[in-house]
Amino acid sequence: MYATDAEKLDVARHEALAGLEEGGIPIGAALFDADDRLLGSGRNQRVQGGNPALHGETSAFLNAGRQRSYRRTTMVTTLSPCWYCSGLVRQFNIGRVVIGENTTFYGGEDWLRENGVRVDVVQDPELVRIMTDFIAGNPELWNEDIGTLEL
Amino acid sequence: MYATDAEKLDVARHEALAGLEEGGIPIGAALFDADDRLLGSGRNQRVQGGNPALHGETSAFLNAGRQRSYRRTTMVTTLSPCWYCSGLVRQFNIGRVVIGENTTFYGGEDWLRENGVRVDVVQDPELVRIMTDFIAGNPELWNEDIGTLEL
Repeated sequence: MYATDAEKLDVARHEALAGLEEGGIPIGAALFDADDRLLGSGRNQRVQGGNPALHGETSAFLNAGRQRSYRRTTMVTTLSPCWYCSGLVRQFNIGRVVIGENTTFYGGEDWLRENGVRVDVVQDPELVRIMTDFIAGNPELWNEDIGTLEL
Repeated sequence: MYATDAEKLDVARHEALAGLEEGGIPIGAALFDADDRLLGSGRNQRVQGGNPALHGETSAFLNAGRQRSYRRTTMVTTLSPCWYCSGLVRQFNIGRVVIGENTTFYGGEDWLRENGVRVDVVQDPELVRIMTDFIAGNPELWNEDIGTLEL
């Protein structure tokens, strides 16, 4: 049971920190049901798994397995969801998103709000620091992950 | 080499038909580079892999492996891309999308055009028939795949 947003965010944070230790991009996420039960969590797998399709959110979504409805679920992510992950939330009608921080990257959260998703931003200082350090140290990898490398 | 859109679409069609034979949702996709080379193809894996994160397009994207840039790539998909897959295209700046048909499902293709993606629709009669038959025979599974089951 993860009753509070802080407890939920700690699951995503744990995933992000595990990714950092593995040499990966430190973004994690977790999906909870309406009763605050953890359905699944995951982290970015670009480096570790050589898998460009698994961002934090899509990894958590995958690890939650097939669900018949997502309307009453909450996606908790350490970082503002990119368009890919925002599209996931919108298509599957995930009801709520909790964002650890949106200062190092700002994704599709306004679009989600416009489409009826409840979005809350924690602005967690530790998560800001982790991503700030990671982007500064790995700019090419980061730009590859968000599709902004210009070649 | 897959010089024409028809040749490219046949790769996605082959994936969709293979999915149908496996008892899965018959949607396939393929990603090509600027020189018409196949980078990767894939098909919906909700049933076969128990994997809700792999739609046709995300499966093709995964199987193409890590790419440094997608700007000059073309995503060919048998069906209009849902918001999840449209978000993938937008985030990674995939330059062009070829859609087999958009009569049985209409996703985020207008949004993609508004954001600079070239989108072409083939309206292939065989693909329309395959999805029409599939949706009629498996409405719950189909609604699960596009997140529209109301529970």
